[in-house]
Parts: sequence; structure tokens; C-alpha cells
Amino acid sequence: MSFRATILTLYPEMFPGHLGLSLAGRALERGDAEIEAVNIRDHATGRHRNVDDTPAGGGAGMVLRPDVLARAIDAVSPEGDVRPRLLMSPRGKPLTQARVRELADGPGAVIVCGRFEGVDQRVIEARNLEEVSIGDYVLSGGEPAALILLDAVIRVLPGVMGNAASGTHESFETGLLEHPHYTRPQVFEDREIPAVLTSGNHRAVDEWREAESLRLTRERRPDLLEDRKDQLAK
Amino acid sequence: MSFRATILTLYPEMFPGHLGLSLAGRALERGDAEIEAVNIRDHATGRHRNVDDTPAGGGAGMVLRPDVLARAIDAVSPEGDVRPRLLMSPRGKPLTQARVRELADGPGAVIVCGRFEGVDQRVIEARNLEEVSIGDYVLSGGEPAALILLDAVIRVLPGVMGNAASGTHESFETGLLEHPHYTRPQVFEDREIPAVLTSGNHRAVDEWREAESLRLTRERRPDLLEDRKDQLAK
Repeated sequence: MSFRATILTLYPEMFPGHLGLSLAGRALERGDAEIEAVNIRDHATGRHRNVDDTPAGGGAGMVLRPDVLARAIDAVSPEGDVRPRLLMSPRGKPLTQARVRELADGPGAVIVCGRFEGVDQRVIEARNLEEVSIGDYVLSGGEPAALILLDAVIRVLPGVMGNAASGTHESFETGLLEHPHYTRPQVFEDREIPAVLTSGNHRAVDEWREAESLRLTRERRPDLLEDRKDQLAK
Repeated sequence: MSFRATILTLYPEMFPGHLGLSLAGRALERGDAEIEAVNIRDHATGRHRNVDDTPAGGGAGMVLRPDVLARAIDAVSPEGDVRPRLLMSPRGKPLTQARVRELADGPGAVIVCGRFEGVDQRVIEARNLEEVSIGDYVLSGGEPAALILLDAVIRVLPGVMGNAASGTHESFETGLLEHPHYTRPQVFEDREIPAVLTSGNHRAVDEWREAESLRLTRERRPDLLEDRKDQLAK
């Protein structure tokens, strides 16, 4: 069974976007993953097919109506659909590589992309939407964020990465940032590849890489080391 | 002077991608921002025009060669180009809305998108690349991340958002997550809009929203409250 994502959006033409190319593109072609973008506007009613309205209490921007979005969700994800329902939102829980792995192990996802100021809170509660944030910055809408989440998930689906070993040493998979990389030429603008890496001593190479990972993480992301300690303590 | 981004990539066809649509698309059309994607492969030499090679010290995957990437950078960003040079990388400093604002206030950016295992460390140092991460997960390459950074930056360029007030109350702009939103209908599946929002009492509305922002941030992202305390203390 392949991973099946249904995206609810006002910009279905943004999909598959960059997912149609490269690694994800080949996975979609092979059928390892399936992406379907559905226009929320198809579920609007009334003469103007409005999907949004002014915020209760006043203020700038527009808010996505709960009734329209609920109809769209119910249409693509009827009772019995066990896929998690995600709402891309800067208020959400930050996406982690662990959550990416979990999603990739599941049947897929229904992904709601907000636009405007946001989505009516009542539909978030009534349809049990899990708010997911890809980072501490604000985007023009949920679509770019959904593309990121799908790129990360498709990448780790079984069979997608050519070399299964590639990936396991990467940043976040071990709880640490990845060590520096070097390749040919041996000398680049008077800078040499660290001698240990060309020594042929595999154990020394592994030790160097591990030490560099730790050093980089300590320098740049001490928060990850704290998280890691907490996890090891469990 | 408009914001000018030059992207170095092996997948120039991924650009402008979703930036060609919606808010960013209109900004690009108006010339508020300019995006140019340059193929790193155009700067490869030799019969096979190789851009990557095996990692020194062994291991899976391929590493982007420093000489090829340096030539590409020097070609698009000659001496005197004051634009920051970014490398999208999970090892980088996490992108924040403050950094997005800073970039938007500047002349643009040169953005290097890695693929494969990574980029030779020597070119990062020799060309002073600033490693930027959009979140704690791993993508198929730097391109999706570059699209996210540009979406966030273009959105806050002068004149891009229709209503200038929209945006200032958003998540991260105040250091807090945004309060819940509501709109019509008044009753949705037996759920009413909180009475205070339809009371007409603007001060009560503001107080409710501020309290909800604080409550949500405390519940979901206590780390943001800590950061905020640190900043206020400065």
C-alpha cells in the first residue's frame, strides 16, 4: 500500500510542484506515493462560492470558513479514513524527523493548507486537525509548508532512496548535526582534506566524524544535545 | 531597488515553482523581487562535467565538489556583490522571522542548494557561506528549503501584502503564537463564536486575543516564552 496524501488547498496548481521532479518525482511515478490536490472552493456554496469571511472581533485579513472547510474534509476523508489530518500552521507543533518517519510509516495524510489570516478555530476542533509547523517563520500560505512535509516524508518511504545506507547518518537521525564532508580535489585553494579522512583507517575516520558531529552540535545547536540527554535518560 | 535572489542549484527547473503563483507570483510580476536560478553544472569542467564525487573517508552518497561550486558562486556573485551567501542545510542556524525581516531589508541573496550527502566543507569556508536550516528534518535537497525562505522573505517586502496591517499580529512577529480565529457562520455544528468577539467591545477583544496568544504559546511553545524573556531582559 502506498503513501496517499490528499491536500486541501485554494491553490491546487501548486501541487505536485517540485515534488514532480528529482527523487520525489521518481517516487510518484513509480507509485510509491500518491498526491491529490483538491480545491477547497469546490466545496463552497452560495452565489459567490465564498470560502472566507472577515474575522469575528475585527482586524485585518480574512478567515477560512468552518462550514466550507468541514465539507471539503468530509468529502475527501469520510468516516473510516484512518489517515491523520494535518493543518499546516505556524501555531502548530514543530515538525521533527521523528514525526516525518512516523508519517512515512502510516497510510498517508490529509493536509489542510490555510491562507489568509487563518482557519476558523471550530473546524480545527470539530475535525480534529493536528496543527503542524515547519519552522518559526511566516509563509504566504500552507502550501509551501505542505510541499516541505511531503518532500521529507516521500524521501524516507521504503525504496525511495537509492542507497539505503544514505540517510541513516544524517542530521537529526542520530540526534546530532552531521559532520563536515570532503571530496576531490585533494587540494582546493590551498585547503587540504583533513589527513585522517584519507588515512585509510576506518576506525579513525568514524571517530573523527563522531567527534565533529558532537562539536558542531554543541557549537550550533546545544538545544539538540539537551533533547538527546532527555531521551537517553528515558 | 528590488530584492534579487540568485539560486545555485542542480534543478533550476524547480524555480520559481510555487513562487510563480499567488502573493509571491504577483510580487515577481511587478518586479518587487527577482529570482534567477543558475545550474551549478554549467560551471563543471571535464568530459563528464561532474559536479560531485565520493566522500573522502568513505561512506554512502556523493559530495558536491568545492572547485565547481566555487566557480559557480564567483560567476554569479563577483567581488563587490554585497548580497549574503546562504547555503540551505540542516546543519545551519534555524531560520527565524527576524532573519527573514533582515534579509527582506537587504539587496537580496545568493542561495546555494545542496543535493546528495552535502557540500565540501572547504567551499563553505572559502566562500563564507552562511548555513541556514528551515527546520529539524531532512529534505531531498536545498531547493524546497530555498523556496520556503524566498516565500517568507518576498511576503514581507514593501508593498507585497495588500493590507499592511495584516502580518504585524502574526505568529513570531510578537514573539508569541497567534490567537485563534473565528468567522461566520455564528453557529457551526453547535459551536458558537466566543461571545467576547461579537460584543463590539474592542478593548475586551484585544485583551482576549492577547490572553489566548499567551495561553497557546505557554501550552505549545514554552521555548518561545523563554526566548522572549531573554530578549526583554536585554
